[in-house]
Amino acid sequence: MGDVASPDAPLLRALRGDRPDRTPVWFMRQAGRSLPEYRELRVGTRMLDACLTPDLAAEITLQPVRRHGVDAGIFFSDIVIPLRLAGIDVEIEPGRGPVFADPVRTASDVARVTAIDPAAVALAAGPVREAVRIVTDELGDTPLIGFAGAPFTLAAYLVEGAPSKEHLRARAMMHSDPASWHRLAGWLAAVSSAFLQAQVAAGASAVQLFDSWAGSLSTADYRAFAAPHSRAAFEGVTVPRIHFGVGTGPFLADMRLDGIADAVGVDWRQPLDEAAAVLGEDTTVQGNIDPALLSAPEEVLLAHVSDVLARGRRARAHILNLGHGVPPDTDPAVLSRIVAFAHEEAA
Amino acid sequence: MGDVASPDAPLLRALRGDRPDRTPVWFMRQAGRSLPEYRELRVGTRMLDACLTPDLAAEITLQPVRRHGVDAGIFFSDIVIPLRLAGIDVEIEPGRGPVFADPVRTASDVARVTAIDPAAVALAAGPVREAVRIVTDELGDTPLIGFAGAPFTLAAYLVEGAPSKEHLRARAMMHSDPASWHRLAGWLAAVSSAFLQAQVAAGASAVQLFDSWAGSLSTADYRAFAAPHSRAAFEGVTVPRIHFGVGTGPFLADMRLDGIADAVGVDWRQPLDEAAAVLGEDTTVQGNIDPALLSAPEEVLLAHVSDVLARGRRARAHILNLGHGVPPDTDPAVLSRIVAFAHEEAA
Repeated sequence: MGDVASPDAPLLRALRGDRPDRTPVWFMRQAGRSLPEYRELRVGTRMLDACLTPDLAAEITLQPVRRHGVDAGIFFSDIVIPLRLAGIDVEIEPGRGPVFADPVRTASDVARVTAIDPAAVALAAGPVREAVRIVTDELGDTPLIGFAGAPFTLAAYLVEGAPSKEHLRARAMMHSDPASWHRLAGWLAAVSSAFLQAQVAAGASAVQLFDSWAGSLSTADYRAFAAPHSRAAFEGVTVPRIHFGVGTGPFLADMRLDGIADAVGVDWRQPLDEAAAVLGEDTTVQGNIDPALLSAPEEVLLAHVSDVLARGRRARAHILNLGHGVPPDTDPAVLSRIVAFAHEEAA
Repeated sequence: MGDVASPDAPLLRALRGDRPDRTPVWFMRQAGRSLPEYRELRVGTRMLDACLTPDLAAEITLQPVRRHGVDAGIFFSDIVIPLRLAGIDVEIEPGRGPVFADPVRTASDVARVTAIDPAAVALAAGPVREAVRIVTDELGDTPLIGFAGAPFTLAAYLVEGAPSKEHLRARAMMHSDPASWHRLAGWLAAVSSAFLQAQVAAGASAVQLFDSWAGSLSTADYRAFAAPHSRAAFEGVTVPRIHFGVGTGPFLADMRLDGIADAVGVDWRQPLDEAAAVLGEDTTVQGNIDPALLSAPEEVLLAHVSDVLARGRRARAHILNLGHGVPPDTDPAVLSRIVAFAHEEAA
């Protein structure tokens, strides 16, 4: 296990519901293509190989912390990494996303995949633990956030076999063969949980579960077919938990997962004060700068950030972030400017 | 002008807020790739050329009406057709979508495009009027619905220059240069309006405006930057108006556009009775079968359709449809089965 972050770190205080002196800030996808030092480091290495090379994953995780002075690192990985660790044949096609050699569409496909013991993920996670140790040793008091994909989003990739727009096949399976659906999603929850726990055991101080595609679900389907499995993915995790989805405004309160989530991420569609009112007094909010405004003139962007910070004060605590990931063509100086601006303002 | 549909047609009665004897049903993208007779007819012809060849566009529009017995035809076209009629260089790349030779990103790009007189669309719309005349002559009492893209969705394509996931550039322009945004969206409203009016003049009995990407907007941005232009696109249209968006649940009441929309389309995310409660007594609802369930076993699908019909009875009137377009790999027999099922049930 690497160094332990200070419990007084602003991120961890905000996750406990305290009001730290300054609003903590980090950015989803801060480690990645927006940074020239990342693009240089990645030359010649495929995405999933980079995630599983400890020195490389650690360095990529640390780059944005050094450059921007953000209040947390987010472990550099990919949501399909735990599936690869479980032995599933998956590769990232540049410009497209994860592509699976054998999509999981039938009951027998589901039986084949779920026959794999989720403990295989922990056994194969050595490079992940090693990378986390390197990162947390260097970060010192700054927390590292562990990372995993939520079962529905993982299933949407796995059932389709590739990225899709409306995840029709995965959503069809829920209704056509609910037993297979729950078997698959339950297995994915165990896999995500094992992956999160490996990061925590090696030194991560908090975790975030990404349900990027949950917004394609009706509220009824989210409750019946996705939420219980996301909750299961968080079980056994002994550090604060952040839960993030895109387009999940219609069922934002459900994203609390009966309170197991300490913080809920909010995309750019919903004002943060309204989200805070829906989430109540027991939940920290995270978000929700509109990524589209990162390319706007500085005065337009900072007026927006200032509005987000003001609305965030209506929550029990607020972690400043974007409403979704950093777009690859973002000028990194703009991200550094947001960090400085947020740190100048009183929380 | 072709034949005029009967004012007693179930679709037109439902749009007026009457309760016809049977629930009218049609499907978004009913004309298109799910039909083998369409795929055969399209061999060797590019998408936009097919839209502008009167015999071909008419035949494609008629195919699903003959096959399924739906209660309306929807004019076969593409949302970028009015832009091509205005002289803009655009092509559909198979598997990708519309691609523009010159994306519209700067104030001077906007000035260049908006210098085109929207009347050019009406002047160049001869093939569209001709196709509508052929269709309405053959349809007789069955109404034809005219078609156009909403200004925000058109702008999202035009500013990006190609399909995009979160329409960052278009949404950035709203805040970075609101004057240019409103100039562009106002021009697109005039172009869409001219395209709808050409279809109405030639015999269309109703129109639908598609705002496929509106769900990427916050409620505040939808109200400030999109809704006024969609309303303008409907002005001057003298037949009933259907307004459809995807992911627009958070601002569904705004989709009424101050009441200029006679019907509002609802995607699969929101139960139709809840949508009807939000939309009130002056609006017909359209939707909202989950396209994912078209591949489910028949008893699962029909139980869902039955539920949609039951919830639709809570609205002033209901037009049965999908929550989004027909997926290309849909078995057309399934669509015919839904029509028969809906027509057997009392409205």
